[in-house]
Amino acid sequence: MLTCLKFVVLLLLLSSRSCDGLQFNDIDEEVELVAQSSRYGSLWPLPQKVQLSDVSFKLTTSSFRIVDAKESSAGPSCSLLQNAYRRYYDYIFENAKKSWQAKGKRTGPSELGELQVWITSADSECDGYPSVTSDESYELTVNQPFAVLKAPKVWGALHGLETFSQLVYKDEFGTVSILLDSSLVLPFFLFFRTFPQLSQKGAYHPYTHVYTPADVKMVIEFARLRGIRVVPEYDTPGHTQSWGKGQADLLTPCYAGSKPSGAFGPVNPILNTTYDFMTQFFKEISTVFPDAYIHLGGDEVDFTCWKSNPDIQKFMEQQGFGQDYSKLESFYIQKLLNIVSTTNKGYMIWQEVFDNGVKLKPDTVIHVWKGNAQQYKNEMANVTSSGYQTLLSTPWYLNRISYGQDWQGFYKADPQDFKGTEEQKKLVIGGEACLWGEYVDATNLTPRLWPRASAVAERLWSAKDVTDISDAFNRLSAHRCRMVERDIPAEPLFSSYCPHEYKGV
Amino acid sequence: MLTCLKFVVLLLLLSSRSCDGLQFNDIDEEVELVAQSSRYGSLWPLPQKVQLSDVSFKLTTSSFRIVDAKESSAGPSCSLLQNAYRRYYDYIFENAKKSWQAKGKRTGPSELGELQVWITSADSECDGYPSVTSDESYELTVNQPFAVLKAPKVWGALHGLETFSQLVYKDEFGTVSILLDSSLVLPFFLFFRTFPQLSQKGAYHPYTHVYTPADVKMVIEFARLRGIRVVPEYDTPGHTQSWGKGQADLLTPCYAGSKPSGAFGPVNPILNTTYDFMTQFFKEISTVFPDAYIHLGGDEVDFTCWKSNPDIQKFMEQQGFGQDYSKLESFYIQKLLNIVSTTNKGYMIWQEVFDNGVKLKPDTVIHVWKGNAQQYKNEMANVTSSGYQTLLSTPWYLNRISYGQDWQGFYKADPQDFKGTEEQKKLVIGGEACLWGEYVDATNLTPRLWPRASAVAERLWSAKDVTDISDAFNRLSAHRCRMVERDIPAEPLFSSYCPHEYKGV
Repeated sequence: MLTCLKFVVLLLLLSSRSCDGLQFNDIDEEVELVAQSSRYGSLWPLPQKVQLSDVSFKLTTSSFRIVDAKESSAGPSCSLLQNAYRRYYDYIFENAKKSWQAKGKRTGPSELGELQVWITSADSECDGYPSVTSDESYELTVNQPFAVLKAPKVWGALHGLETFSQLVYKDEFGTVSILLDSSLVLPFFLFFRTFPQLSQKGAYHPYTHVYTPADVKMVIEFARLRGIRVVPEYDTPGHTQSWGKGQADLLTPCYAGSKPSGAFGPVNPILNTTYDFMTQFFKEISTVFPDAYIHLGGDEVDFTCWKSNPDIQKFMEQQGFGQDYSKLESFYIQKLLNIVSTTNKGYMIWQEVFDNGVKLKPDTVIHVWKGNAQQYKNEMANVTSSGYQTLLSTPWYLNRISYGQDWQGFYKADPQDFKGTEEQKKLVIGGEACLWGEYVDATNLTPRLWPRASAVAERLWSAKDVTDISDAFNRLSAHRCRMVERDIPAEPLFSSYCPHEYKGV
Repeated sequence: MLTCLKFVVLLLLLSSRSCDGLQFNDIDEEVELVAQSSRYGSLWPLPQKVQLSDVSFKLTTSSFRIVDAKESSAGPSCSLLQNAYRRYYDYIFENAKKSWQAKGKRTGPSELGELQVWITSADSECDGYPSVTSDESYELTVNQPFAVLKAPKVWGALHGLETFSQLVYKDEFGTVSILLDSSLVLPFFLFFRTFPQLSQKGAYHPYTHVYTPADVKMVIEFARLRGIRVVPEYDTPGHTQSWGKGQADLLTPCYAGSKPSGAFGPVNPILNTTYDFMTQFFKEISTVFPDAYIHLGGDEVDFTCWKSNPDIQKFMEQQGFGQDYSKLESFYIQKLLNIVSTTNKGYMIWQEVFDNGVKLKPDTVIHVWKGNAQQYKNEMANVTSSGYQTLLSTPWYLNRISYGQDWQGFYKADPQDFKGTEEQKKLVIGGEACLWGEYVDATNLTPRLWPRASAVAERLWSAKDVTDISDAFNRLSAHRCRMVERDIPAEPLFSSYCPHEYKGV
């Protein structure tokens, strides 16, 4: 199993104006906008710009509504937004009820009756998929008699709804009002490695441990409704052991001396049938996954088996590769890239492909994952000085657990912190937090992922100068409790408690 | 929050004879005794002696029964056993159904109709509590027409039921039959640190984050029904910050120069009121907890605050302690031990109390937790050469997570592996796996605890020569999947899958 979240940084605009009205109030139906102990409340990740004022509003369960603004290009037929309204309404009032039910009714703060959601561009993209170039900006204004969330596309509106929900059901002291300005975005990516075509024999179990086409569709739609992209990774020529069980001749037979040992190595790069298979395979993949990108892998190719195989040796001689098996790897990858190019998808590859000098299309995204801090910074400098876009993962391998507050290390790593020009820095399109599955399954996935992935999220989303670790601790602690309230078993950052603890096993 | 499991090793007898009959069979109602890929099936922890044969039986849901043997001293009025029968019947057939429902009916293996449970001593201890000297032995014989589980006391019967359940619903190859012989036992201990008397002000929250007396009773009874001891730890004079909020003058006021700083340190050892409080406190504790032992803590006492306080300084002078604050610590602990002695409870203390030369009763259990491997082995040698019983925790701090298969380290640590005589080795009464709560709450407790704690369990339970790590891996993997089938989210040891995965979040 492989789970990988990707955060890609895009520029966008957020802004809003301040608001008035506040103090504690309550009973079941009422909640208000008040802040927690960070001056930014429990906002996570922090928008690029937030402006506070000392007033707030109350919200009333029975009357508060999230509605389409009259001018909006997305109306009641946009089920993506309607779903999101319902989802956030439930978050806001269900959690608010839990927080406030013990307190009495008070008068005082003014009431906020509506959040109007206004999609401003002619095409709301309601029925589309988010992409690497999607406009995910939003602008949230909280003021009487209604709040307004303006966004060019539905993707920004989803983020704005999350921000709005994070401003509600606070406790502690007074008020918060907000001014949001230009900010950054984080779409998540989900990767798969198994697929029905090969899963009958390659999966742990052909019925219980595969993604059926219906599963894949469901995941993609679930993600789309939340503005999340799903990018498949099919990692060749290595990482393909399970493929061989369902596809004869795809893998290289390894030799022990002059005879086949019975074991198999990476994809066999010298057979035409390999490329026929890959053509058909990636054609199907490119149809199933709507995203404009495919991740082609290319990492960790072990040459031992290739070296043992006499047919491969002969091919190396014919091609004049000498004993340089990375040339054979490049030979394979270049043929693969040509195949994938015909699908009109963009592609990402792991850094080894770049390191080995494979010829790449200029718009290839190079995925950096190896080495210590100095090494990955050098790699980022090399990749970007060659003019390629890059995505960083090295400091964000969430599967590599250690004792203590490792979220701080994730939080501090900056993907643009390497020697290079401003031009080079702009080629860093973001980072990816990876949670590889060697020691993870449904029993421990969620608490291992959250809130550690949230730390990465803010680094990739918020302004460069949002680095106050103690403020981050306060907000992230509150954000973690909010996830727990939403029934996500996010683990504690440190000794602490939540007003409403996780009720699971 | 603090969670700590303790495994105490006791000697006891287990034996049984072999059995006959087997091969695959199934449909919903039927399951059989067949083994998994370890020759010991999925037994965990491994009994001291297991004898295999190549036959097995089938069990039929509709007719199989777990019953009291005629000769048993525990009859239908022993609710502890009746509860256990129902629990294990459900485990056996619920999981068995899941495993076998896809297969067709077969004939062949003989049927096992009954498991008879025979408590052999006049006092079954059905209504009692397990203790450090409880006889937890059992003897399981699987043969037609019924299997017999003999145990002097109910405690052994509970372990035998678990073993019986582990012999059922296997898949892979043929048969298992069993001969169990002299073995070891592991009762679990649960510790608490909060208690209603002080919890109003000391707890995270006085309603939602305390153990009420009813909670404590329920935990104790839940544990008793499973043969588990509950031993409270109240750790003084350090680790008491939260106590001070509910009990004036209990803690030492710290000074900044000539004035109190407002902060408080360890328990104030120079006031009579301190000892009055402790007398009353431990009197209550000793009533609430039926176990014969109390853990008194005594670790990690920071002298800084004591040193700053002029009243303490004066007292040190009067007592002739000079600047040796460990003498003051000893002064406190000795008074505390005298108080606790009057409750007729035995006591355990952390190693610092021994290291500081406090006078201890000869039956005190010294709890070793500090240092690296060489240091804790030296400590074990010192403690036992002074004639004290000891319990080891150093290698089993489950909260100290690291990347990879750390269960192997837990599995390999041997509490008797230090320089000492046979007499000294006998003073090692066992070990304790600790999972301290700094980074743990309900969101991640269970997968962090299991199956890593299971590795410790086998080390403390099974024969000294059960050290085959690969066989352990196979059985522990199967045991982990069994826990998952029982709805316990035990995390994977490594890339793997279970026939029925955890369905939680």
